[in-house]
Amino acid sequence: MSIPRNFAPVAPETLTMLKGVSTATLSAQLLKRGYAQLYLQGVLPLRPDLHMAGQAFTLRFIPAREDLARDEQMASGDFNNLKNKQRIAVESVGAGEVMVIDARGDTRAASLGNILVARIKARGAAGIVTDGAFRDSPAIKEIDLPTFARGQNPNISFTVHYAADINVPVSCGGVAVIPGDVIVGDAEGVMVVPRAEAESVARDGWEQERKEAFIYDKVVAGASIVGVYPPNAETLAEYEAWKQSRG
Amino acid sequence: MSIPRNFAPVAPETLTMLKGVSTATLSAQLLKRGYAQLYLQGVLPLRPDLHMAGQAFTLRFIPAREDLARDEQMASGDFNNLKNKQRIAVESVGAGEVMVIDARGDTRAASLGNILVARIKARGAAGIVTDGAFRDSPAIKEIDLPTFARGQNPNISFTVHYAADINVPVSCGGVAVIPGDVIVGDAEGVMVVPRAEAESVARDGWEQERKEAFIYDKVVAGASIVGVYPPNAETLAEYEAWKQSRG
Amino acid sequence: MSIPRNFAPVAPETLTMLKGVSTATLSAQLLKRGYAQLYLQGVLPLRPDLHMAGQAFTLRFIPAREDLARDEQMASGDFNNLKNKQRIAVESVGAGEVMVIDARGDTRAASLGNILVARIKARGAAGIVTDGAFRDSPAIKEIDLPTFARGQNPNISFTVHYAADINVPVSCGGVAVIPGDVIVGDAEGVMVVPRAEAESVARDGWEQERKEAFIYDKVVAGASIVGVYPPNAETLAEYEAWKQSRG
Amino acid sequence: MSIPRNFAPVAPETLTMLKGVSTATLSAQLLKRGYAQLYLQGVLPLRPDLHMAGQAFTLRFIPAREDLARDEQMASGDFNNLKNKQRIAVESVGAGEVMVIDARGDTRAASLGNILVARIKARGAAGIVTDGAFRDSPAIKEIDLPTFARGQNPNISFTVHYAADINVPVSCGGVAVIPGDVIVGDAEGVMVVPRAEAESVARDGWEQERKEAFIYDKVVAGASIVGVYPPNAETLAEYEAWKQSRG
Amino acid sequence: MSIPRNFAPVAPETLTMLKGVSTATLSAQLLKRGYAQLYLQGVLPLRPDLHMAGQAFTLRFIPAREDLARDEQMASGDFNNLKNKQRIAVESVGAGEVMVIDARGDTRAASLGNILVARIKARGAAGIVTDGAFRDSPAIKEIDLPTFARGQNPNISFTVHYAADINVPVSCGGVAVIPGDVIVGDAEGVMVVPRAEAESVARDGWEQERKEAFIYDKVVAGASIVGVYPPNAETLAEYEAWKQSRG
Amino acid sequence: MSIPRNFAPVAPETLTMLKGVSTATLSAQLLKRGYAQLYLQGVLPLRPDLHMAGQAFTLRFIPAREDLARDEQMASGDFNNLKNKQRIAVESVGAGEVMVIDARGDTRAASLGNILVARIKARGAAGIVTDGAFRDSPAIKEIDLPTFARGQNPNISFTVHYAADINVPVSCGGVAVIPGDVIVGDAEGVMVVPRAEAESVARDGWEQERKEAFIYDKVVAGASIVGVYPPNAETLAEYEAWKQSRG
Repeated sequence: MSIPRNFAPVAPETLTMLKGVSTATLSAQLLKRGYAQLYLQGVLPLRPDLHMAGQAFTLRFIPAREDLARDEQMASGDFNNLKNKQRIAVESVGAGEVMVIDARGDTRAASLGNILVARIKARGAAGIVTDGAFRDSPAIKEIDLPTFARGQNPNISFTVHYAADINVPVSCGGVAVIPGDVIVGDAEGVMVVPRAEAESVARDGWEQERKEAFIYDKVVAGASIVGVYPPNAETLAEYEAWKQSRG
Repeated sequence: MSIPRNFAPVAPETLTMLKGVSTATLSAQLLKRGYAQLYLQGVLPLRPDLHMAGQAFTLRFIPAREDLARDEQMASGDFNNLKNKQRIAVESVGAGEVMVIDARGDTRAASLGNILVARIKARGAAGIVTDGAFRDSPAIKEIDLPTFARGQNPNISFTVHYAADINVPVSCGGVAVIPGDVIVGDAEGVMVVPRAEAESVARDGWEQERKEAFIYDKVVAGASIVGVYPPNAETLAEYEAWKQSRG
Repeated sequence: MSIPRNFAPVAPETLTMLKGVSTATLSAQLLKRGYAQLYLQGVLPLRPDLHMAGQAFTLRFIPAREDLARDEQMASGDFNNLKNKQRIAVESVGAGEVMVIDARGDTRAASLGNILVARIKARGAAGIVTDGAFRDSPAIKEIDLPTFARGQNPNISFTVHYAADINVPVSCGGVAVIPGDVIVGDAEGVMVVPRAEAESVARDGWEQERKEAFIYDKVVAGASIVGVYPPNAETLAEYEAWKQSRG
Repeated sequence: MSIPRNFAPVAPETLTMLKGVSTATLSAQLLKRGYAQLYLQGVLPLRPDLHMAGQAFTLRFIPAREDLARDEQMASGDFNNLKNKQRIAVESVGAGEVMVIDARGDTRAASLGNILVARIKARGAAGIVTDGAFRDSPAIKEIDLPTFARGQNPNISFTVHYAADINVPVSCGGVAVIPGDVIVGDAEGVMVVPRAEAESVARDGWEQERKEAFIYDKVVAGASIVGVYPPNAETLAEYEAWKQSRG
Repeated sequence: MSIPRNFAPVAPETLTMLKGVSTATLSAQLLKRGYAQLYLQGVLPLRPDLHMAGQAFTLRFIPAREDLARDEQMASGDFNNLKNKQRIAVESVGAGEVMVIDARGDTRAASLGNILVARIKARGAAGIVTDGAFRDSPAIKEIDLPTFARGQNPNISFTVHYAADINVPVSCGGVAVIPGDVIVGDAEGVMVVPRAEAESVARDGWEQERKEAFIYDKVVAGASIVGVYPPNAETLAEYEAWKQSRG
Repeated sequence: MSIPRNFAPVAPETLTMLKGVSTATLSAQLLKRGYAQLYLQGVLPLRPDLHMAGQAFTLRFIPAREDLARDEQMASGDFNNLKNKQRIAVESVGAGEVMVIDARGDTRAASLGNILVARIKARGAAGIVTDGAFRDSPAIKEIDLPTFARGQNPNISFTVHYAADINVPVSCGGVAVIPGDVIVGDAEGVMVVPRAEAESVARDGWEQERKEAFIYDKVVAGASIVGVYPPNAETLAEYEAWKQSRG
């Protein structure tokens, strides 16, 4: 099964820039563009040391139902990798993409476990995000792949979830995610950057972080926030001079 | 836009029978067939006096996002009925069908209001179910159409919801709903009857209700439940005789 | 199975008095005696028109587990009334008692349904309270027995609950209930009156209601609450005169 | 204690118009003015038959703490009406005002009971709104005053709440309420109309309801929503003609 | 007070094997045996580095009530260790057992603190599990005993909890726990292994982990999951050869 | 804007003692004085290694509303530090004080971020507590200032919160906080010590910790809790001797 990507790819440099910008800065930049709530509520990193940026490849779960998975199981009872959509998604996610799983916020069973995470990493994906849970979470923390979830749970996915769709618009952590959106993660969590905003947000976010580093240093050095954060003309001039001086 | 129905229609007599059986009885019949949880949790009738049975026609909401609805609005800012999927769904639901809306359990805004409910009724639908809310709920209670929701809320849908898909498998009240499933509602709430089970559940549910009416009368008359509920051979014989006697 | 009652019975006159006092008044009387929170949170009447007072007979559910009920089922799969504790409890509750069910606040399945409710009524019980749900709730509302629950749900109890104990101390609606406590219910909900407080609370509650009826009339007639609610010496004197005058 | 009102009063005619407009219509009108979420989530009417409109007079509770109320109690343990702010608020609310109570959404104890409700009505207030609970709720339902709450609970307020402030900006049902805002309630719940928007919302809401009544009749008569809801030029012309014809 | 153990002890080798198997593997093995949900939801390790396996010794809390603890306190107000069941349980838990506390998921006060944890460790217990909270949690993390909870809270247990029963069936984290069940914990959380399943689950879990280690290595090395996870005949043959080769 | 402090300052020695006592001990001492629940539920340290004690300086948020912040923004859209109360609070908190933010438990946006935290530290504050969230939480963890919150969230405060008041009584984590109360935090969380209790709680808490260290050592060495915890006369004598011996 070949899953089409109906969106423009984002340049690697842009992804690199976004990966270097904090989710807090992204939130500010997106708010300037009119987006108020693109943070995935309650979805936290298993590995806070790893940053992530990649375009969304989505998987949509609906609640498990006794009749739904029958045709997707083999005689042994195990999943048929060629029919079950969770498995198809794992074998379809592309290099540099972030798999985003809509688990309806339900952590009563896992969305997936360490063997599938290892496979997703082997395929070159940039990370995995679920608003459900991972199983084998201690083992997953050993894998150098950014992963984000609302919880951990050893129960197998199909006790609670049924994989219904691949690469459709989904809900994750209370936010709409459209295939192709840029998904950025850091120690604070995960932000959705709508595809059309990626380039300008990367550029302006980068500049914002430079300016705030300057402001932060002034504040640590004892400056009041008045006139400094937000900066007035004088502080901005100081900042410009500082930028010049650093080349 | 024409929405295909990829499922076998259920005969009107079967729907009539299902409409006459309580959700409690359906739950028991479905449990016998291996289905443990097909009740939509927390979804209650606006009109407990109306019973409902019809095949599911689904609408899937995802969270609203500032960029998603732009192309679906007219210059006035109002929805374009030809582009917005909530509106397309309203103009596509068929006679005898139940519109089932996946609102992710979110009642912070309505799924729809009284004018759309009136249109759905005018199209001959059998009812509407959302795990979100209705607006204009006092006016909707005046309409003789079975409606079920988790709450009431005057806020317009697009402040919280974006209509992403029509007639795909959805989650509603924590239960998977597949287009074509039979959706049955009474004063206790809503049960999903998987399409393939509809006929046998209707038939056996009908018989169960007759038998339990007999048992209920015995219990009210002072019988212990021992030997009666569940019935032993003697009680069953009594029941068969009672059935014969009533023709 | 005979279930011992290790507590002193409450006189019928006391129960009648308690049944005539509102849960709001009982809450005030119990607070005076040092009890701050004896209201069953979220447990509401199916029949707000019926008042209830009776001593607690308890049933404790724990979560269902696939192995627990095996020995309590008959070949047919139905409950064995002689082994299953939910059924034993139904056949053991006494005249004038209130069955209190600890369902851990879980409404994903029923605690019991209309046939068992009818049997409990036939045995002369004073009412039923669960912090779970009833099934067949529309039918139960037709029965003239006070019933109280946190929800309604057609699913059969054993999909979620297993009856573990009869007449032990339990939790219901976040409150400890000890067998023999007096359980009082009205349209506002359910209060637990610890056994040892029953008589004095009945007497003082009765007097409080009379006094507050007097105060209420004054307030409706335009009196400020200052000096009236709570009453000062003058208001109390007026009240005493009013009481005298009415014999 | 005299509580200042630092806001412009709303004309009685405007309040009358707002009382005649549904909360659903108000929500639409406020959205046009940029306000997305002014509905008090989860706050429902005790008397769905009564409509309400009045300017907000607020009371702010914080959590009870063992030391806070000491100075506000009399020797008897009862509240001192001259010191306790709940009581002062009751004796300060003005004719035509709506008392809005910030109870932090906490329904574990009441915000107030029937005697204070009666006093508030006697003072001529337009209604009472709490995001907590009422006690004596069955008795309150007998009073012809619009009241709205998240729950019912016989427990006395000070077991959970301490009245900290009168007529300051508060949170109620997740919405900011500023003294002087117009609070409108109907069977669907409660909307906050910011003071500055009251007049234009009343006028435009009234017109919206007339237009939607026209549209509703067309839809009931079988019209598609396409071209009708929202109305196109032709439908608008029809509407204008209909308005003319009715004078 | 001597607490009887009405169950067969599990052999130390079996406990050792279970302690070496992940909760994820146990969940899979239990699912094969028909148990879908035996993971304690939301109960997490204070010390993720410690694994635990032991038979359940249970303690059941109900909500605190002002009259219940009176007889269990000494003149000083402190608990009487000979009467209070929390204290009796601490002095009764056996070597190798896991104390499992049913705290109704309530973390508003602790289930116990560091001195009692130290005593339980001194008695040789294998660990402690509560679906409530620990107090002195920083100090408990210093103790080399596996402990698991839903939260941390310095408040003393009896402000919220009353110890009602020892070694009865309980609910913990939404799962039924029967005295004698094997309770296994690792960094992912806690699984209940019903007593009768312990031996076969230990044996098959051990084999499953070996096979999955083989599969994991193949996937890390670049293998698709198709044919590998689940393994087809060829992969199984490879695995058998690999096992042989390693003796 | 100068914010008055209407409370007696606590001596530095007392604050130092309180900072050295665990929240668990404080909870016990406060319970002896009649305070049952002064722990901020769900509010956890970002830096469990840092202890905190200081008098409360409060900031009260209410829900954001589209019209409220208009006058507090500059032409650029940024906050005006001289008008916005969050910013005024940051520039008003005093040396040794703890800023306590009432965020209504809402973590959907931050209460503040790292630049403001740095400024608060530069002003000499003792710490920051919110029952909402921090943004830039990874950067805040780098700052040597005790900070406590219910969550982390990159979204800017004014998307959800509006700063309404400074240094008034507030609710935080479900507990009343009065300006001047001593706020103590450690790895377990945050306790409120009412101003009037600070000195005696510090003194008795210190002694309690010494005694419990002695008891703890006995228990670790194998003593039963009977006679030891709580200590009987013999154990107390032993303790007194131990104290003497250590000078």
